[in-house]
Amino acid sequence: MSIEKAVAYAEENRDRFLHELKELIAIPSVSSSSEHKQDVQRCAQYVRDAMKVVGFERVEMVETERHPIVYGEWLGAPGCPTVLLYGHYDVQPVDPLELWETPPFEASERDGRLYGRGTVDDKGQFYLHLKAMESWMKTAGKLPLNIKCIIEGEEEVGSESLEPFLKENQDMLAADVAVISDTSMVKKGWPSITYGLRGIAYFQIDLRGSEQDLHSGIFGGAVKNPIHALTDIIGQLKDKDGHVTIPGFYDNVVEVTEEERAAMAELPFDEEVFRQEVGAPELTWEKGYSALESLWCRPALDVNGIWGGFTGEGSKTVIPAEAHAKVSVRLVPNQEPDVIGNLFEKYINEISPPEVEITVQRMHGGRPFLGDLSHPVFGAASRALEKGFGTKAVFIREGGSIPFVRDMTDTLDLPCLLIGFGLPGENAHAPNEWIDLENYALGTLSAIHLYQELSEM
Amino acid sequence: MSIEKAVAYAEENRDRFLHELKELIAIPSVSSSSEHKQDVQRCAQYVRDAMKVVGFERVEMVETERHPIVYGEWLGAPGCPTVLLYGHYDVQPVDPLELWETPPFEASERDGRLYGRGTVDDKGQFYLHLKAMESWMKTAGKLPLNIKCIIEGEEEVGSESLEPFLKENQDMLAADVAVISDTSMVKKGWPSITYGLRGIAYFQIDLRGSEQDLHSGIFGGAVKNPIHALTDIIGQLKDKDGHVTIPGFYDNVVEVTEEERAAMAELPFDEEVFRQEVGAPELTWEKGYSALESLWCRPALDVNGIWGGFTGEGSKTVIPAEAHAKVSVRLVPNQEPDVIGNLFEKYINEISPPEVEITVQRMHGGRPFLGDLSHPVFGAASRALEKGFGTKAVFIREGGSIPFVRDMTDTLDLPCLLIGFGLPGENAHAPNEWIDLENYALGTLSAIHLYQELSEM
Repeated sequence: MSIEKAVAYAEENRDRFLHELKELIAIPSVSSSSEHKQDVQRCAQYVRDAMKVVGFERVEMVETERHPIVYGEWLGAPGCPTVLLYGHYDVQPVDPLELWETPPFEASERDGRLYGRGTVDDKGQFYLHLKAMESWMKTAGKLPLNIKCIIEGEEEVGSESLEPFLKENQDMLAADVAVISDTSMVKKGWPSITYGLRGIAYFQIDLRGSEQDLHSGIFGGAVKNPIHALTDIIGQLKDKDGHVTIPGFYDNVVEVTEEERAAMAELPFDEEVFRQEVGAPELTWEKGYSALESLWCRPALDVNGIWGGFTGEGSKTVIPAEAHAKVSVRLVPNQEPDVIGNLFEKYINEISPPEVEITVQRMHGGRPFLGDLSHPVFGAASRALEKGFGTKAVFIREGGSIPFVRDMTDTLDLPCLLIGFGLPGENAHAPNEWIDLENYALGTLSAIHLYQELSEM
Repeated sequence: MSIEKAVAYAEENRDRFLHELKELIAIPSVSSSSEHKQDVQRCAQYVRDAMKVVGFERVEMVETERHPIVYGEWLGAPGCPTVLLYGHYDVQPVDPLELWETPPFEASERDGRLYGRGTVDDKGQFYLHLKAMESWMKTAGKLPLNIKCIIEGEEEVGSESLEPFLKENQDMLAADVAVISDTSMVKKGWPSITYGLRGIAYFQIDLRGSEQDLHSGIFGGAVKNPIHALTDIIGQLKDKDGHVTIPGFYDNVVEVTEEERAAMAELPFDEEVFRQEVGAPELTWEKGYSALESLWCRPALDVNGIWGGFTGEGSKTVIPAEAHAKVSVRLVPNQEPDVIGNLFEKYINEISPPEVEITVQRMHGGRPFLGDLSHPVFGAASRALEKGFGTKAVFIREGGSIPFVRDMTDTLDLPCLLIGFGLPGENAHAPNEWIDLENYALGTLSAIHLYQELSEM
C-alpha cells in the first residue's frame, strides 16, 4: 500500500521536516508591523517555494491590499474529493521581548518542544500538511485526492483580505471539505477534532453625565455620577445565576445535547486543575451547566475594560464627566452577531438612566460555528487521527472565536475540519510560544492518513 | 468714632491695597512644586513684612518640614476678645497654562475682576484682613481686640505641618474665635457666613480575580470577571432612592432642622440654572430632600475613578486579572471618618463575592464641621457683613471639605467663622482664577467691622 511508503518517508525525513520549520520560523513575518512588511513578503515567497517542492501544479502569490495570500493546488485526482487546506504564515508580535527565554525567531528545542514565534500559530501546523503532501508525492507520485491550499498573511490582523478573495474565487476554491490546523488538542495524547467555536459581538459603551469633570464636594449628592450609571447598567446585564438578562438573548441558542454532555464528561477536564491554572479563589459558571459546557457551549458576557475618572496614584475628588466600558459577548449557535447587537443596543438604551447620555458602539462581530458530526468528514478525520496518534480521537468545542471559519464555510458552502495539534499552555500569543515536537511528527502522519481517509468517503 | 476713620482710610487706600495684592500675586508660591520652593519662601517673607507694616508686636516665620508658617500677633487690647485669623499664602499649580487668558502671575483687571493665580484662593482673602487691620492701626493706633494670625504655606498640599504646629503651640494660639476667609458667597451681593462643611473619607478598592489576564474566549463563562465583581459591589452601595446602603451609615447623621430648611429655601439657588451649569440632561438627588439640602447637609457617596482591563482604542478580548475603584464619601455631622471607614470596609468585605480577592485601602479622611449658630460670634459676623456690604448676610453650608477647620477648632477649642468673599465660578483650582474687585474692597470694610463687632460680644 502506498500510504505505508508515505508514512515511512515522513518518518525518515522527520529531522529535515523540523529543520525546514526552523527556517520558516526564522522569517519574522509579523503582519501587524509595517517594519516587517518585507519579511512578510519573504515568508510568502518561502511558502510559495515550499508548495513548489510538494509538486503543486499551480502556485500563486495573490497580492492583496496588505499581505499576499499564497495559493497552490494539485488537481490530479479527477473524480476524487477535493480538500481546501487553510493556514496562515503571519505571526503575532513578540512583545514583551525580554520575557522570551530564547530569541523568538531562532527556533530552539527544549524538553520535547520547539520554541519560537509561530511554531504552533500557525507555521508548524500548516507546514506539517505540506510535508504530509510531499510524503505522498515523493512516494506515490500523487495525492489520494485533490488539494487546494490557501495560506494567508493577515490572520493576526483580522483576515481582511480573505473574505473578498473567497467571494471573488468561489469557483476556483470549490471543494468538498475545508481543513484547518490552527487549534489545540484538549490535552497531550488526546488527538482532538474541534467541531464548535463560539462567535463574538464586541461593543463599547460611552456615558456622559456632565459637560466637564465636577468637584465631588461641591456637586456630590445632586448629580448622577456616570460611573454609577455605568456600573448599574453592567449590573443589569446578568442575573445572580449568571444568565444574561437581555430580552431575547437566548432565543436562538442551540441547547447542548445529551450526547455532547456525555462526551464532554469523558474528557480530561478537571475543574480544580482549571481553577489552579486560573489562579482564582473560586470559579463560577452558569447554573444548570458544567464548567466545560459553560466554556464551550454557552454564551458568555464579559466586560473587557472599564474606565472613568481619576485612576492615578493617590486621590482626587472628582465626579467625572464620562465613563466607558468595553463589553463582549461570546455567541453560540445560532446567535447572530447582528441580531445580538440589536438586542444589546436596545436593552442598554432602555435601562440607561435619564441623567446621562449614552452611546453604544458596535466594534466587531464573528459568527459561531458548529459542525454537523453526522457528516462523513468527521468519521474520516477521527480514523486518521487514531492511525496517526495510535489513540482514539475526541470531539471537542472551543470557547474562542475564529470568525474566518464561518466566512469560509458560508462562502464556499462546505464542511470544515478543525484539526489542531497545539496544546494547552502553548503561549500562542505570548512570549515563549512552542509546539510539541512529537505532535509535529504525529500531526504529519495524521495528515497523511487524513488525505487517504477523506479520499475514501 | 474711630471705626469711621478706619473705614475712610480703607476707602482712600483702595487702589494701593489692590496694587499690593498684585505684588503678592506676582510671587509664584506653588507649594506642590519643588522648583518653586524659593518662591514659596519669598512669599512667606512678603507676608511677614506685610504683618510688620500692620504694626504687629511679634512676627515670625516658623520653619516646618516643608514651607514656613508665618505667625504674627498684636495683643494690645487686654480684657478684649482674641481673634485667630487663618489664611494661606501658597497657591495651586497653573496647568494647563495655555488656557489662561492672561499670565497667572501677572494679576490683571477685566470686567470688575482681578485675574491671577491665588487672587481668591487665598491671597486676596487673607490680605484684605491685613489691610483691615492696617486701617485700624493707622487711624486709631490700635485694634479693637487682640489678633493672632497664622498664614500657612501648605494648604494646597494637605496642611501637613499645621496640626503639629497647632498642637505644640496651644497656649500661644489660645483665642476666642477663629476667622477664615477661604470660602465663597452664595451669589454676588449675598454676603455669606459658612457654618457647615462636609467631611470626607476616601478609599481605594482593589480586586483580583486571577493570576494574570485571561483570554475571554477561552475562559469566558467559568471565571468571575473582577470588573463584574466590582460593578456589583458598587451597585450595592446605594439604593434606587440614592440612600447609601452601608449598615449604620446614617446612625450619627444630624438631621437638617426645619429652620435650616426654611433658610435654605430662601437662598438664590435655582435647580434649573444649576442643571444647566452642570450640563446634565437631568439631575438626581436623595429622596426626601431638596437639591441644596442634598449638596450641603446630606452625605454623598461617589466613585471618583474606576479602571480595569483594556481601555485603549479598538478591542481586546481579555478578562482582566484586576479591577480597581476610588470611592469617596462626603460626610456630614456627626459622621466620623474612622467610624465610616470601619463600616465601609466591613460592608465591602461582606458583599465581595468569594471568587475574588479584595483589598480596601483608606486614603485620607477629614471631619465635617457644623457651627453652633446660637454662639454670639455668628451674630457679630452677620452684623459686620451687613455693615460692610450694605445688605443682609445669609448663613450657608458648603458641600466641600476643609479638614483643617476641624483640626483648628478641635485642637484649640474655639468657634470658627468662615467668611468667604469668593464667588461661584471663581476658578479657584482652574485656569483664569479671579476675585471680584468690589468684593475685595467690601470684604476689607467688612473685616474692619468684624473686629469691632467681635470686640463688643
